[in-house]
Amino acid sequence: MSTQFDQVSVIKKANIYFDGKCVSHTVLFADGTKKTMGVIFPSSLTFNTGAPEVMELNAGKCRIRLKGEENWTTYEGGQSFDVPGNSSFDIETLETLDYVCHFG
Amino acid sequence: MSTQFDQVSVIKKANIYFDGKCVSHTVLFADGTKKTMGVIFPSSLTFNTGAPEVMELNAGKCRIRLKGEENWTTYEGGQSFDVPGNSSFDIETLETLDYVCHFG
Repeated sequence: MSTQFDQVSVIKKANIYFDGKCVSHTVLFADGTKKTMGVIFPSSLTFNTGAPEVMELNAGKCRIRLKGEENWTTYEGGQSFDVPGNSSFDIETLETLDYVCHFG
Repeated sequence: MSTQFDQVSVIKKANIYFDGKCVSHTVLFADGTKKTMGVIFPSSLTFNTGAPEVMELNAGKCRIRLKGEENWTTYEGGQSFDVPGNSSFDIETLETLDYVCHFG
């Protein structure tokens, strides 16, 4: 997979969530879709989703528990996981995550 | 000034410096120049420069001392400052900085 996105627009202003535990920048594509590129520092957080998401991990390690599930699944750099829309997931970041989040 | 960069490439992988106190993403322009978009969390750091830089602050507040200077100067969101090439600067971030760094 390519290491960069080409012919895109990027929003200058960063998205800072959870008191800085999550930082991302938004990338806009010509087809109207968007992605965020970001980092999550070691923490235990809950993210809510609007659109369905695919979280692609460039680096790091985390445990994920989707809403309504009992079990945690571990993911690390090179892997990705899907999250349904209008839902949420708990994420325990064990090693700083470098990620790209794909929406829709 | 525009709130976004258009027709650019962005590197997916984040740049993480100083144990996460500074996080940025690299933006590549068609003319061969690059910029980084990032965040610096409250901290006292020293950055070395290769190319000359212009630090454009979207938000936050910091004090800067260029190499060889005695005095500190305060900058905040909406302002920018220049740093010579092959030099360094001390930066005390008082409120989380959201910045764009222009090189060359």
